[in-house]
Amino acid sequence: MNELIIWTLDWVPEGPRGFVRDLRLRWACEEAELPYRVQTVPFGDRETNHLAQQPFGQVPFLSDGELQIFESGAGLLHLAHKSDKLMPADPVGEAHTQQWVIAALNSIEIVTVPWWFLKVSGDEDNALSEWLDTRLQQLESILKQRDWLVADRFTVADLLMVDVLRVGDIRSFGNRPATEDYVMRVSERPAFKKAYADQMALYMGAE
Amino acid sequence: MNELIIWTLDWVPEGPRGFVRDLRLRWACEEAELPYRVQTVPFGDRETNHLAQQPFGQVPFLSDGELQIFESGAGLLHLAHKSDKLMPADPVGEAHTQQWVIAALNSIEIVTVPWWFLKVSGDEDNALSEWLDTRLQQLESILKQRDWLVADRFTVADLLMVDVLRVGDIRSFGNRPATEDYVMRVSERPAFKKAYADQMALYMGAE
Repeated sequence: MNELIIWTLDWVPEGPRGFVRDLRLRWACEEAELPYRVQTVPFGDRETNHLAQQPFGQVPFLSDGELQIFESGAGLLHLAHKSDKLMPADPVGEAHTQQWVIAALNSIEIVTVPWWFLKVSGDEDNALSEWLDTRLQQLESILKQRDWLVADRFTVADLLMVDVLRVGDIRSFGNRPATEDYVMRVSERPAFKKAYADQMALYMGAE
Repeated sequence: MNELIIWTLDWVPEGPRGFVRDLRLRWACEEAELPYRVQTVPFGDRETNHLAQQPFGQVPFLSDGELQIFESGAGLLHLAHKSDKLMPADPVGEAHTQQWVIAALNSIEIVTVPWWFLKVSGDEDNALSEWLDTRLQQLESILKQRDWLVADRFTVADLLMVDVLRVGDIRSFGNRPATEDYVMRVSERPAFKKAYADQMALYMGAE
């Protein structure tokens, strides 16, 4: 098997530690017991210093032998095809996992990240708050009815959705007990804890 | 082969006509010459009347025989596996098409849609404008260097990226000649024109 390398930044300020998106790929590899290494690119000039690997200057990106993939969502889908611990192998389970991965990105994160950005820019009660509330309520309705997004089991869709939802400002926006239970339950998985601890250790060690 | 059905709303106001996201799936089917039918759900109470099919009350969703898929991005990836007119069949071409589909949704649309929403809410020069400008400039740099996002040919990633970028308020934000050329060139494809005309005809007929 090709060597998997997860690329991330060599340092970040305290705020984003534990939330840099390489965590999604580390977590997936830990769940699937796929061996991987972490390599870094410099934080300084990060918007231009790795454009050949990531045209938007972001992390993570994933190397799988010669293949390079950017976008954490695309990296997750790529890893999911390597292990049925991340995605059921049947076509329906695969299509529905893919659907919920896209939903986490394009129906939930499309509002959580811009709303959070407006909030930290000083505008907490902003024009996106109603949209955010609607989407989180719709998700709460789903999570009241079932423990997992797809196929009655953990998949990479839960991994991604929980990573989107566990941001403090999103968790404390409104009161949604089923969502809170889901976030707590999924982030207690040993693979999450290992990925989180490893990311924190990298950035503590870089001080 | 199973029958493909693209589900959309039976009516929308004039503003969104030509931009309802069923167009993405119609366009993909036209490119790939996949036979399909369009069926509708009522516009009235749209946020609750098809929650069994689409938990966020949105359109489109796609039926492929018994399989139902929501999220236009997930529908596109599903259709792309049916035809190499939408995605190269080799693993690298497939991974990179998937990567750019996710980039269109999670690096570009994640800022275009919220920015547009703030603009139409009356706040044109808003806190997301700098982020929007950065992302569109990064994309312009890429489109200066090549005609297509993946594999030197049209793929479903171009279809989606152009659908994200062709929104008038985004096209007129700044001056990006390579992006404008790309949007014009791709939206002159007969499959786009057919999909667009069919969506417009549905909503004109529904008056």
